Amino acid sequence: MSQVPQSTIQRLPVYLRALLEAKAARMPLVSSQDIASMVGSNAAQVRKDLSYLGELGTRGIGYDVDSVIAHISSWLGLTEERRIAVIGAGRLGTALVSYVGLAERGFHVAAVFDSEPSKIGLSVGDVPVRDVEDLESALCEGCVDIVVITTPADVAQSVADRVATAGIKAILNFAPVSLVVPDDVVVRHVDLSVELQVLSFYLAQMK
Amino acid sequence: MSQVPQSTIQRLPVYLRALLEAKAARMPLVSSQDIASMVGSNAAQVRKDLSYLGELGTRGIGYDVDSVIAHISSWLGLTEERRIAVIGAGRLGTALVSYVGLAERGFHVAAVFDSEPSKIGLSVGDVPVRDVEDLESALCEGCVDIVVITTPADVAQSVADRVATAGIKAILNFAPVSLVVPDDVVVRHVDLSVELQVLSFYLAQMK
Repeated sequence: MSQVPQSTIQRLPVYLRALLEAKAARMPLVSSQDIASMVGSNAAQVRKDLSYLGELGTRGIGYDVDSVIAHISSWLGLTEERRIAVIGAGRLGTALVSYVGLAERGFHVAAVFDSEPSKIGLSVGDVPVRDVEDLESALCEGCVDIVVITTPADVAQSVADRVATAGIKAILNFAPVSLVVPDDVVVRHVDLSVELQVLSFYLAQMK
Repeated sequence: MSQVPQSTIQRLPVYLRALLEAKAARMPLVSSQDIASMVGSNAAQVRKDLSYLGELGTRGIGYDVDSVIAHISSWLGLTEERRIAVIGAGRLGTALVSYVGLAERGFHVAAVFDSEPSKIGLSVGDVPVRDVEDLESALCEGCVDIVVITTPADVAQSVADRVATAGIKAILNFAPVSLVVPDDVVVRHVDLSVELQVLSFYLAQMK
């Protein structure tokens, strides 16, 4: 599995979303072209990406929607619930906690933290905001799988250090700063302006 | 320029962020390995991606930070201000409007829309929320470059149809649904659960 290109891993959740839409539309079979159209890719790319998961499609018939959903879900480790802690109960943090689709993809927000006394004790969704001082005790082994950082940039690294020391192996970083973590910790960085910059590129090409 | 792989285009904004951090740290020169370390990639990938922009680096010396910043910014069309309209003034929409880093990357939120009477007339940041009924008149040619959709899934397609008809060529979609648009419109889809699913994959591999 480790030979799967990172770009393919990145696309699998997108295919999964398209397949769940196809399932909702009661399509039992889809072609690689169907999937490509739904996600804005091309059929050859879809076939290549899905080939990493095994021989899933049948030439001239297509892919069995339920089967491919099950395969991708299994590959992505989505068959078990993942518990998330969100650090930073600002606008973005609270938007994430209430983001439709997290729960239905198996992500459960187990804890929310902030350092602002006026926020501690409030609830986001039905999750109480806890003092970030209590972070280590809450990140006890096995209680939380993934930490989402939505703090201001200037404290994100110190939060990441504490998270890594507490034994968390996966961090999703929304703070606009690159984080340095130990080799055995995976960080994914979401910069909300990156996609705007990609669109800006295409706009510049259209001229 | 059109031969640049989409994956490279996607990484250029990430390199740009790293280079801006290097500049802030007063590093006049960086190696491909420096950049790779900052963004969690490898030096060969960085060199290959940057090679699409021209012969920027000097072997054994590295990249001139200011020069590469200027090249990437120019490529991404970031040298001119991009005006954005955000449709949907919910938690995510308001988080985006106030996202640190949009303005400093040259993105100006020109308008915010919602259909909820209780939100219309309120301000998000210093931008008043307007009735989505007035969308077409606000998206007059040249007033808005990019539309960001943060509406519920069930209305996102109809909003996208109106946006495309109004002549907008770039859409950033946060609604959890795939949008169908004319061929001359570029849509980028941000699904906040995709990165969690990618992390879930790596967690599954660690077992």
